[in-house]
Amino acid sequence: MGGTMKAVRFHAAKDIRVDEVPIPELKPGWVRLKPAFVGICGSDLHEYEDGPHIIPPKGSPHVMTGEAAPITIGHEFSGVIDQVGEGVTGIEVGDKVAVQPTIYDGGCRACKRGLTNSCDSFGFIGLSGWGGGMGEYTTAPAEYIKKLPKDMDLKIGALIEPLAVAWHAVANSPLKAGDAVLVLGGGPIGLAVVLSLVAKGCKNITVAEISGRRRQFAKDFGAHHVVNPIEEDVVQKTKDLTGGEGVDLCFDAAGVQKAVDFGLESVKARGTFVNIALWGAQRVALNMTHMLFGERKYVATVTYVDGDFEAVIEAVHRGDLKADGMITKVIRPDEVAEEGFKALVEDKENQVKILVDMSKAKEVSTTK
Amino acid sequence: MGGTMKAVRFHAAKDIRVDEVPIPELKPGWVRLKPAFVGICGSDLHEYEDGPHIIPPKGSPHVMTGEAAPITIGHEFSGVIDQVGEGVTGIEVGDKVAVQPTIYDGGCRACKRGLTNSCDSFGFIGLSGWGGGMGEYTTAPAEYIKKLPKDMDLKIGALIEPLAVAWHAVANSPLKAGDAVLVLGGGPIGLAVVLSLVAKGCKNITVAEISGRRRQFAKDFGAHHVVNPIEEDVVQKTKDLTGGEGVDLCFDAAGVQKAVDFGLESVKARGTFVNIALWGAQRVALNMTHMLFGERKYVATVTYVDGDFEAVIEAVHRGDLKADGMITKVIRPDEVAEEGFKALVEDKENQVKILVDMSKAKEVSTTK
Repeated sequence: MGGTMKAVRFHAAKDIRVDEVPIPELKPGWVRLKPAFVGICGSDLHEYEDGPHIIPPKGSPHVMTGEAAPITIGHEFSGVIDQVGEGVTGIEVGDKVAVQPTIYDGGCRACKRGLTNSCDSFGFIGLSGWGGGMGEYTTAPAEYIKKLPKDMDLKIGALIEPLAVAWHAVANSPLKAGDAVLVLGGGPIGLAVVLSLVAKGCKNITVAEISGRRRQFAKDFGAHHVVNPIEEDVVQKTKDLTGGEGVDLCFDAAGVQKAVDFGLESVKARGTFVNIALWGAQRVALNMTHMLFGERKYVATVTYVDGDFEAVIEAVHRGDLKADGMITKVIRPDEVAEEGFKALVEDKENQVKILVDMSKAKEVSTTK
Repeated sequence: MGGTMKAVRFHAAKDIRVDEVPIPELKPGWVRLKPAFVGICGSDLHEYEDGPHIIPPKGSPHVMTGEAAPITIGHEFSGVIDQVGEGVTGIEVGDKVAVQPTIYDGGCRACKRGLTNSCDSFGFIGLSGWGGGMGEYTTAPAEYIKKLPKDMDLKIGALIEPLAVAWHAVANSPLKAGDAVLVLGGGPIGLAVVLSLVAKGCKNITVAEISGRRRQFAKDFGAHHVVNPIEEDVVQKTKDLTGGEGVDLCFDAAGVQKAVDFGLESVKARGTFVNIALWGAQRVALNMTHMLFGERKYVATVTYVDGDFEAVIEAVHRGDLKADGMITKVIRPDEVAEEGFKALVEDKENQVKILVDMSKAKEVSTTK
């Protein structure tokens, strides 16, 4: 009981630190785990560069956690169960797990329909409080814990969260056998969409991405065609690849207005454009000629709901979802700023997913 | 054979005339009819005020009709079959009919899937050529002719087109029993949406409309609630009417950015926003916070496809779709500018649908 541990915490923009903080105490219905690997997400980078955005600023605690900055970061993570709280069944000490980090109250009207991703009190473990993956220990409600197969690499376990975002988008889309699909953006989520589409048997995947290295990742991950929107006419290319019709579905993992325009125009009549990208306060301006004449659908999807983590874990374990290639770098907890965030900006081309190895947490020094 | 007739033609903005033109000749596979009543549409008014928009300007003939201004107007019309072309079966002289005015080539990829409203060569009888309702005679391909029951008032026959626009939007929406629906705008299409929803058994219809007279029309037509968005908080009102959840569906027949914003926010998680409005070159700017957190859908719908006219005619004939109240005025062909277009602007509050009585065409003088 008691004691302290190392944790990587967001204090303010450009200010993350390795702090010595109290080891979290277990509550009934919760479990405690030792995080193993933690993926660095674009939203972590976004917080670091000019946040806080999702992280509650000092003085404005999150409605569910009651916490504000400084906040322990890391919401894409795997770990091993260390303690099991009173009343928790089906989870044992030593279990390998991934954490579904979306915080919800369970009582709002959306939650009651299972749409916990649309909860009125929505938040994120690792952004809104309740600890996070980048601490030596963290605690979470038992229902947020998703068990991993015993033979699953804990590095892969840290990929379940971003894979679930993509999987959820694909699973809730009208994708059917024989569909042609355009993916906008070859970053981690775009690539996870490619992996999910491949797992679902999609045979005509085109990825539009400016970076040549990322186009190569897309091909390596199973995209059938890649296109550089700077040099090629994406609308024409997708028409050529679909006998003149256009794609059935477009997934937007880029979040760029220009890409929305050519993406929407690439979608065939009655086709669907699925937005996964986060836009902050920026609005998306739809070309209504493209929308109306063709009766197109623009659909938003966000995170995941219960069942998505389980489906991804199952698909990875079966070998249908081959995610290993996503991991491009593994760093230590005291390298998050220099080798993590900085690499995601300056070496963006070569990085898909950078993992933090939390087994090194004991060795690192606190930030002075 | 030969001879001339009166026709109301668009020459340029603010310039429509009653002209003496040749009676159109019949082609094989086509029929000739005597238009009876013609509804004036918002798009006719739009052409008159600052067109041409849809009407092909002089020198830029429409791809299907080969015609440009001057063009005989009128695309919402009923009539009586006068001649039947070679090879046409199932249509007889004397049949009461409505004309489905959307022009399509039948050969493009959208047409081959039955989506004639998304045809690459899309046009309109009464805007793009091939005559129109405001001539003493007009001709059309036999497949554009929809037979009316013998006992149907030809005035009602002129309402089938706008009703079909609304019916199509509702029929292609995910409307299900028990749904709560918000309709934006109480103009002719918004009111036709109310009538269609009532016909489908919808029991919770709210219409948001600024004009008090139009809100009264909405109530008369079967809306259960009306709201004035200038004075009331539409989001709060719809929440109150749905136990805090928001509406399942919103139909936009207003085409105003501000209304899109409160309409989208009024839609519950996973609900659908259906755009019927025409936006011209204007873009719709979606608030992505409303879209994402709630995984909402923004869907465009336009005109109708085969089957919609038939369904509307059947619903009107059965008495499920009570459209009589839509007709607020009947005028002569030489009154289209003064008593038609001008009334739709200056007496907008009191007008829903103004019909032109084509039986008076013989009596009117040509424009000097």
